[in-house]
Amino acid sequence: MSASNVPPSETDALLAAVKFGSDGLVTAVAVDDRDGEVVMLAHMNRESLALTLANGVMTYWSRSRKKLWLKGETSGNTQKVVSARIDCDGDALLFRVLPQGVGAACHEGYKSCFFRERNGAAWEIQGKPLQPPDRM
Amino acid sequence: MSASNVPPSETDALLAAVKFGSDGLVTAVAVDDRDGEVVMLAHMNRESLALTLANGVMTYWSRSRKKLWLKGETSGNTQKVVSARIDCDGDALLFRVLPQGVGAACHEGYKSCFFRERNGAAWEIQGKPLQPPDRM
Repeated sequence: MSASNVPPSETDALLAAVKFGSDGLVTAVAVDDRDGEVVMLAHMNRESLALTLANGVMTYWSRSRKKLWLKGETSGNTQKVVSARIDCDGDALLFRVLPQGVGAACHEGYKSCFFRERNGAAWEIQGKPLQPPDRM
Repeated sequence: MSASNVPPSETDALLAAVKFGSDGLVTAVAVDDRDGEVVMLAHMNRESLALTLANGVMTYWSRSRKKLWLKGETSGNTQKVVSARIDCDGDALLFRVLPQGVGAACHEGYKSCFFRERNGAAWEIQGKPLQPPDRM
């Protein structure tokens, strides 16, 4: 991870508006800046949000692995931050990102984690994966 | 709320793929189908998701009021469901919606709850509210 090029005080000021839940997390939604598609929803703790705001690369908190998760660190599918928004009550964040690598946000290889759409009683896969599944 | 026009078995089949958290909730993101803008992020319990899928009108679970929340029931800014997607691990849903009324998803009167964007050390309001704040 690159060193921060943003003063800590700037990140601190931004974090002051964020309301972390009792689990210490906020929800983060990532949108592909090229076409506006929602590509994933995950969570951030204070440290991962601070790193994301400071470094401009999406860094989540993995709830399953209980550790910082620099998205794409292994697969190369990192996400550069284009802009960051916060919602009215401060507990959700919306990032426009530029996907790197092959651009698969989903560990199952799809561009978006939301690759299944309702059709009647079924969730049907839409489109094809961009790469084989990875291990996150 | 209108009576369901979808067989209960259809909704049950869809719900089987959803992984509700220990709090009984999943995260739901609503996108304006007209322009793809993310307008809000809220939560659904099993009942509110079943109602949403059956009736085609966004119905959330209000965590603050601890009750079903037919979005726009008071303000008229309901959200008609255009499509529903589920993410890879089944704990987040993405809805494309057609906002009704004046189209304000946010109780502060803005089209989107994400009306503040980062600029340096500040979250700056973007645009103008469509109506005065309501009481949700």
